[in-house]
Amino acid sequence: MAQRATTIAFDVMGGDHGPAEVVRGAALLSLEAPHIHALLVGDGQVIEEALASTRHHGERISVHHAPSFVAMHEKPAAALADKPDASVVVAARLVADGEADALVSCGNTGAGVLAAARTFQLLRGVRRAALASVYPTRTGHGEKQDPFSLILDVGANVDATADDLVTFAVMGSAYARIISKNPQPTVALLSNGTEAMKGPPRVVEANQKLAQHPGVRFVGNIEGVDIPKGTADVVVTDGFVGNVCLKMLEGVSETVVELARYAYASRLRWRVGLWMLASGLNQLKELTDWQQYGGAPVLGFDRLFIKAHGRSHARAVANAGKVAAKAVSSNLAQAIQAGLG
Amino acid sequence: MAQRATTIAFDVMGGDHGPAEVVRGAALLSLEAPHIHALLVGDGQVIEEALASTRHHGERISVHHAPSFVAMHEKPAAALADKPDASVVVAARLVADGEADALVSCGNTGAGVLAAARTFQLLRGVRRAALASVYPTRTGHGEKQDPFSLILDVGANVDATADDLVTFAVMGSAYARIISKNPQPTVALLSNGTEAMKGPPRVVEANQKLAQHPGVRFVGNIEGVDIPKGTADVVVTDGFVGNVCLKMLEGVSETVVELARYAYASRLRWRVGLWMLASGLNQLKELTDWQQYGGAPVLGFDRLFIKAHGRSHARAVANAGKVAAKAVSSNLAQAIQAGLG
Repeated sequence: MAQRATTIAFDVMGGDHGPAEVVRGAALLSLEAPHIHALLVGDGQVIEEALASTRHHGERISVHHAPSFVAMHEKPAAALADKPDASVVVAARLVADGEADALVSCGNTGAGVLAAARTFQLLRGVRRAALASVYPTRTGHGEKQDPFSLILDVGANVDATADDLVTFAVMGSAYARIISKNPQPTVALLSNGTEAMKGPPRVVEANQKLAQHPGVRFVGNIEGVDIPKGTADVVVTDGFVGNVCLKMLEGVSETVVELARYAYASRLRWRVGLWMLASGLNQLKELTDWQQYGGAPVLGFDRLFIKAHGRSHARAVANAGKVAAKAVSSNLAQAIQAGLG
Repeated sequence: MAQRATTIAFDVMGGDHGPAEVVRGAALLSLEAPHIHALLVGDGQVIEEALASTRHHGERISVHHAPSFVAMHEKPAAALADKPDASVVVAARLVADGEADALVSCGNTGAGVLAAARTFQLLRGVRRAALASVYPTRTGHGEKQDPFSLILDVGANVDATADDLVTFAVMGSAYARIISKNPQPTVALLSNGTEAMKGPPRVVEANQKLAQHPGVRFVGNIEGVDIPKGTADVVVTDGFVGNVCLKMLEGVSETVVELARYAYASRLRWRVGLWMLASGLNQLKELTDWQQYGGAPVLGFDRLFIKAHGRSHARAVANAGKVAAKAVSSNLAQAIQAGLG
């Protein structure tokens, strides 16, 4: 009995490396994942040309033309008003209509979130969707002891009420269970102290609610120092703070190397050590490069949207497709809905 | 003509290494800085005993007994209610009464800020004081190209209005001018995007106000990635976000080393490189250890309070005393008042 294929709609346009790179990612996916069908949405001619020069499994890829697209620098609301048939909107509509099961885009984040918000339905009990991201930590998490935690919201909204934070905790918990194979993920609230009473009113109230929540393994408040440590499997905060933290992590390994250079440029042993480490540090940069891990899921809608980083190369695009398919086949949205009660 | 001595009141109690370590810091200061007088506040007998076994310049140190003190773990408001004559309160009162010019403490941060708030006067136009901290960056700042920026608020309050953020910008700017010898420090607002319209309403409004502020060299919004880079000399944010960011920076170099170990334990060349770097990385940890730089000033009062880190050793205590004396002799409070207009 053949497994029913999961169809992932890829918004092929708007990534930093152009549509051909996203097509190459889908082509890679078609060779590796027999249970996934890739529906490529964007400039039909460009897609066909890219496919013609890339090895792929033809039966697992189809193309849907979209006449326009949103560029990285455009303002989301204005761009969607100008281009009602932009690739990310067309792709979201195909998902909403059941032609595909989930959406992946490497384009403009705000435009993608807005297209999803206008096309998908919020789950019952969810007031606001959240953008989540995995990031590297010092300690392992889940069955495979992967050195990654999940943080959300990282920028879908600039603020959050106590109830929003509780919803984010439930959604992040479900995602960690299903995608990171972590049966009982620990969930923490980010604050300026570990005590339950620390933080702004919304955080104090969310702490009280989460402490009594039956479906979340809540471990209390954590501080900034706990983010890189990986004290919790899921870190809950509002989109403003989460965005600042995630971007700080992005620049961090690079910065430490530079600081080391500054401080110890005059010591030969340190210089030799740095030279020996250089290739390792470059790969470390990759490791701390959050978009490598299948992209950032937008949680809270009935359909999944995975926002892969604009810089994504073919491998990251293929990974995002796999994560999206896994979320679909594992019924992530239903799991979140069940957790919300 | 002799320079008038600046008197710094040291709250000797409540630091992680005990009162003797703070006394040793003041002793060091007395040997190095003829223009500074140290007024040591705490358990008189303990202080005298510590002084007896430490080389110091007797004419530059005096002792003021306080019968109790606030421990690190105590809740500030309750502790001050129980102990109206705790060392940090007595020391703050001596400063308010003109017996000393500024306050330095390594004890409980909340208790120190509360004691200052109850004893000192807010400057005209300041609604809330802010705790500021220097932190290490990749790029140099000011005349000496020091690789440090200033960030505030890092935790005096958990939130801030647009006007508070503008006040923080003026105060941080004055501090960077006077203490970091940076005649025209650049000031940035931390947000989730560099565009002026990005962020929660308070940040958007603060951006508009700062763009028109004559006394602040405002360079607009920066993102999390710009914090370690050092894009701005002064980073302005609310106490909740600033506290999370500062604590993330604290744990960061350690984390990168651990990640490097995790990722490359199996490669001999990398292992040797790491071993060669080990002592450098330990010193790098010191470099990224923010309390080494004379402590965190509480800005916005008519008197200066420098909160040195609980972990401060004698050298850091002495540095905090020097920074406090420099702020006093340079009329920091007047400079802030002038900037507020």
